[in-house]
Amino acid sequence: MSVLANEALASYQKNGFLECELGFTDVEVKVLRELADSEFERDSPARVLEKDGRTVRAVHGSHLWNDGFARLVRSSRLLGPAMAALGGPAYVHQFKINAKRAMRGDVWPWHQDFIFWKLGDGMPEAKAINVAILLDEANDINGPLLVLPGSHRLGTLETERRGSSDKWESHLSADLKYAIDAPMLADLTRDRDIVSIKGKAGKVFLFDPQLVHGSGANMSPVDRRILLVTYNSVDNIPDPVANPRPEFLAARDFTPLEPLEEDSFN
Amino acid sequence: MSVLANEALASYQKNGFLECELGFTDVEVKVLRELADSEFERDSPARVLEKDGRTVRAVHGSHLWNDGFARLVRSSRLLGPAMAALGGPAYVHQFKINAKRAMRGDVWPWHQDFIFWKLGDGMPEAKAINVAILLDEANDINGPLLVLPGSHRLGTLETERRGSSDKWESHLSADLKYAIDAPMLADLTRDRDIVSIKGKAGKVFLFDPQLVHGSGANMSPVDRRILLVTYNSVDNIPDPVANPRPEFLAARDFTPLEPLEEDSFN
Repeated sequence: MSVLANEALASYQKNGFLECELGFTDVEVKVLRELADSEFERDSPARVLEKDGRTVRAVHGSHLWNDGFARLVRSSRLLGPAMAALGGPAYVHQFKINAKRAMRGDVWPWHQDFIFWKLGDGMPEAKAINVAILLDEANDINGPLLVLPGSHRLGTLETERRGSSDKWESHLSADLKYAIDAPMLADLTRDRDIVSIKGKAGKVFLFDPQLVHGSGANMSPVDRRILLVTYNSVDNIPDPVANPRPEFLAARDFTPLEPLEEDSFN
Repeated sequence: MSVLANEALASYQKNGFLECELGFTDVEVKVLRELADSEFERDSPARVLEKDGRTVRAVHGSHLWNDGFARLVRSSRLLGPAMAALGGPAYVHQFKINAKRAMRGDVWPWHQDFIFWKLGDGMPEAKAINVAILLDEANDINGPLLVLPGSHRLGTLETERRGSSDKWESHLSADLKYAIDAPMLADLTRDRDIVSIKGKAGKVFLFDPQLVHGSGANMSPVDRRILLVTYNSVDNIPDPVANPRPEFLAARDFTPLEPLEEDSFN
């Protein structure tokens, strides 16, 4: 099974993120894109639209019903590094594909993920990890993921809380409920530089739930999609909450995943 | 008087833009920023807000009432290259400062300028030039100006016409009336790469009214302002139009400007 070298793990722990190549071939990327297309086309509450009411912003929970994605999240190439970083067995808390649509996809304001999972889903600790696969090339023009190295070590930041809605939809739009404002970002960038995650389709990117991140507009003529799997440690099962989000946003099944012997999802 | 070297002029004509250093010192940039601040603070119809109704997106026509800017547009450092590119005397058709406010400033969709001046202001030909000064550093994070080299030679492109409003305000928002859509941008980028105009505050950038350009979101914690002066040739005086835009958007005075002997605006 694929694991993280000690050096890579140390870098992940220090910076809160790690860029890596896990050998996703062009053919595999093509398969993932086709699987993604089928999810984007299917009308479902798990599909979130942009403010324009017609452009698909993201799909969620596809691993629950899409066989290819069910195998992908159990692929040793993703699950192995996740288990290595978490130090033990894990399950998928959240699965999503964010489409930054050409010239229509909105920004993701600067934020940390954990506060959403803690306050929304009852996750006790930030003992989880995001594993992202670029489904399209990411570059300076198409709104790449931007991160603040080391910011995961600051804990949960006191964020601007926008709007009064408690609906889960407000956690998934460009008006994020827990966003980091400009003065706080100014503070955070005083001693750390913003890093853009760029690279070819198939590149993998791990990041900590407390890492401060965001992304700008896609000014290119083509869509720029990222597939994101959030693995949570089985030692970190969420507490019950009053108004749980739908299962496609917050897992109900905490069974540890078994890495697939044969690493294939098509 | 400052003029353009033949080589620089040839490059401008070939690519439709030219990046240059015209010796704006840190002290001069500071003065320009202070002049800009005073315009941004002053309530006026020439001040355009973002969709949020409170963030200033741009100010217009400041050279008509602000002495410092009145001298700036007559500065031989700006007027000289403009006259060289236009091949003769010129006046200011439009003056604006676009503020891409930190984390609040919206995108500028891909567009050409000339169609607005032609249809809105009766400008006969694209015999004008934009001279831009970066008032803040422009980099990949803060939504730099993006251009398509050589696109000015394609003439006026058939654009997507959004909305039905004939109000001039619709020409100045992120929902630009004459915007280039994704399929057209895909066509345009088949044989040309998108170039970002980056650099330190004080850098100057000349571009053709037919050059396809736009800019993304400002994901940095600081504002990123550009001052833009549109010089028009006195051989290219606009024809009368039915509903002229306010003078702060479209000049009424076509007197050719005399370059100032002493090049100072503070």
